[in-house]
Amino acid sequence: MIYLDNSATTHPRPEVLDSFQKVAARYFANPSSVHSFGSDAERLLNRSRKQAAELLHVEPHEVIFTSGGTEGNNMAVKGIAFQHQSRGKHLITTTVEHPSVIEAFRALETLGFEVTYINVDRNGEVNPGDIERALRDDTILVSVMSVNNELGTIQPIREIGRILRNYPKVFFHVDHVQGIGKIDFSIKEWNIDLCTISGHKIHGLKGTGAMIVQKHVSLFPLLHGGSQESEVRAGTENLPGTVAFVKALRLLYENRNKKNEHLTKMRSQLWKGIGKHEACILNSPSDGAPHIINFSIPGFKPEVVIHALGDKDIFISTKSACSSKQPDVSSVLKACNLDYERTTSALRVSLSTENNSDEISVFLEVLDKTIENLKATMR
Amino acid sequence: MIYLDNSATTHPRPEVLDSFQKVAARYFANPSSVHSFGSDAERLLNRSRKQAAELLHVEPHEVIFTSGGTEGNNMAVKGIAFQHQSRGKHLITTTVEHPSVIEAFRALETLGFEVTYINVDRNGEVNPGDIERALRDDTILVSVMSVNNELGTIQPIREIGRILRNYPKVFFHVDHVQGIGKIDFSIKEWNIDLCTISGHKIHGLKGTGAMIVQKHVSLFPLLHGGSQESEVRAGTENLPGTVAFVKALRLLYENRNKKNEHLTKMRSQLWKGIGKHEACILNSPSDGAPHIINFSIPGFKPEVVIHALGDKDIFISTKSACSSKQPDVSSVLKACNLDYERTTSALRVSLSTENNSDEISVFLEVLDKTIENLKATMR
Ligand SMILES: Cc1ncc(COP(=O)(O)O)c(C=O)c1O
Ligand SMILES: Cc1ncc(COP(=O)(O)O)c(C=O)c1O
Repeated sequence: MIYLDNSATTHPRPEVLDSFQKVAARYFANPSSVHSFGSDAERLLNRSRKQAAELLHVEPHEVIFTSGGTEGNNMAVKGIAFQHQSRGKHLITTTVEHPSVIEAFRALETLGFEVTYINVDRNGEVNPGDIERALRDDTILVSVMSVNNELGTIQPIREIGRILRNYPKVFFHVDHVQGIGKIDFSIKEWNIDLCTISGHKIHGLKGTGAMIVQKHVSLFPLLHGGSQESEVRAGTENLPGTVAFVKALRLLYENRNKKNEHLTKMRSQLWKGIGKHEACILNSPSDGAPHIINFSIPGFKPEVVIHALGDKDIFISTKSACSSKQPDVSSVLKACNLDYERTTSALRVSLSTENNSDEISVFLEVLDKTIENLKATMR
Repeated sequence: MIYLDNSATTHPRPEVLDSFQKVAARYFANPSSVHSFGSDAERLLNRSRKQAAELLHVEPHEVIFTSGGTEGNNMAVKGIAFQHQSRGKHLITTTVEHPSVIEAFRALETLGFEVTYINVDRNGEVNPGDIERALRDDTILVSVMSVNNELGTIQPIREIGRILRNYPKVFFHVDHVQGIGKIDFSIKEWNIDLCTISGHKIHGLKGTGAMIVQKHVSLFPLLHGGSQESEVRAGTENLPGTVAFVKALRLLYENRNKKNEHLTKMRSQLWKGIGKHEACILNSPSDGAPHIINFSIPGFKPEVVIHALGDKDIFISTKSACSSKQPDVSSVLKACNLDYERTTSALRVSLSTENNSDEISVFLEVLDKTIENLKATMR
């Protein structure tokens, strides 16, 4: 199997699964239970939180463990909206956010909030100046992703953070699900108030993740109940999932530079291979994140290409998994003002450090043959 | 170890962990991915949903997989409130609900909803007539738990469902986290619109659960985003967790009658043993659920008793784990109008079918000695 759909999800590393298994079997007590068996679980939870905080250069109490990226994004967007609405009901985001951000905003519109969706350029990049111009006295939140999940576009988060430093009443949320470990990033230095991470995109487990909530930020919880997670996220803590998540995070940061060089090399290989194919048009920006390449094969239904590759045990995707059961147009590519041909024929190859250059060569060869074959049947 | 804190959480069964492990390693694709590897995952997800539906006697599309009981309760309470507020903003619940219900209601009060909290009797039982009397033209939701997590009190859910049949505009939510598998129950026949279940209370995994949402019910999602889970609960599906959850559910229902007889026997043993102890007062109703016994030892701090038992490797709890880090009074016992002495000295023993009568004997013995010793040190 050549798995090149790592932006949809990654396989959990054996060490991660192992941690999960051990903690689930051995530390099964409720960390909130008063007895010593509960305290042991609580201690392990605190240790995980501390480790995550160190890796992300934040304080332990700023790490809120969640069930994943969608929960984190909803928690941030709705949490700020509900909590701070008395100060204003205007929110800013971009047209290329993940559905878990966009749909949260659309839902808030039905509840009387006003949302400005900032346009992007042909590369899917937002202009920080456009964000600043959209700010109003009643703006309470700006939400921009760090890396686009379809194109790999890297957003100017640092610049936006710098601008927002002058607007201390506006909270800044970053969906960092695709960016973590792949691009330069600093939550504290870049003035990011809320930051979403997901476990299963970094060889961790599905149903795990974290939200970083800086200590000055108050949120209306999505999940009310017990006083877990600083009362921002109630519910019996998923200790095995959390330990596994932090393990994945630690492994992600191990030899990070070397891993990213490896990714960058594979991406160049793809960039060249796909770029020179007459049937293909690259959609990703050349300076995008090192793990995502998006391209279109105008005239070809993406599902057909995907299934043909799948028959050869090679797995890539159309746009994002989250919207892949929706009709055919990629809303992200449409937002980039690409034409209909391109927006309806886009494919995404997404890499993990676990991939290697031989796999890329095989993929490029098979892609070539697949296009040949499909052309032949279409004639 | 004698673990008698099964209402706080249970150990995951080895078969459950095994299923998790296998699915996580093998079916790691995103069920929403278009390729065949994704379809395999989707098929497994659908099969799990079908199995859960059969066990719960509902339709597959009425099963929404969640991250646990707290999420389910918030999803139901807030989901109905936000979705149906144009029809009315009055909600009804009881004074003895779990914090994940009570706190969700309190949060809604800050957003302009009005909540009636129905009182209970000395046993923690709500009177269905009181609920009917509280209904108004603008009532949109009644939420009552099936089994109280501190006392084991079984609520008259069937009767409340029967009453609400005459009020078709009022949705009925039941927090069934403590009741499932332990008491007679029928979602469809008892007219329950929304029903919360949690995985880790039934020897499944933390971070798993389900909400049953009858097909005529529309909800404002807690988690917006992709179109997973009938668009009621977005987010990449936690397939390994879900398969493990359904496995736990299946095992729960295996030989259910025999298991409940076993629980009932252990409970009688406890009831007699604790009941005849001069220092103890039973707080649970005699006809409560078969797995929970609550009692007070007036004059003794519950933490002290718990730690003393813990030293002998026996684990029981004070009130519920979710509120156990809060100050000392049990709000549930207070709602039952018990005096201060009792509400501040309550202990809970909660059973699993994995416990046995020898363990109960040892517990009763050790409890007896512990009280002796503590009395001696207090003199
Ligand atoms: C950019 C981005 N944000 C959020 C998410 C949602 O994360 P999760 O799948 O953990 O809910 C995804 C992936 O689906 C994503 O790519
Ligand atoms: C009655 C009841 N409802 C809801 C919950 C919350 O479930 P979870 O721990 O899965 O969030 C619990 C347990 O904590 C409970 O006992």
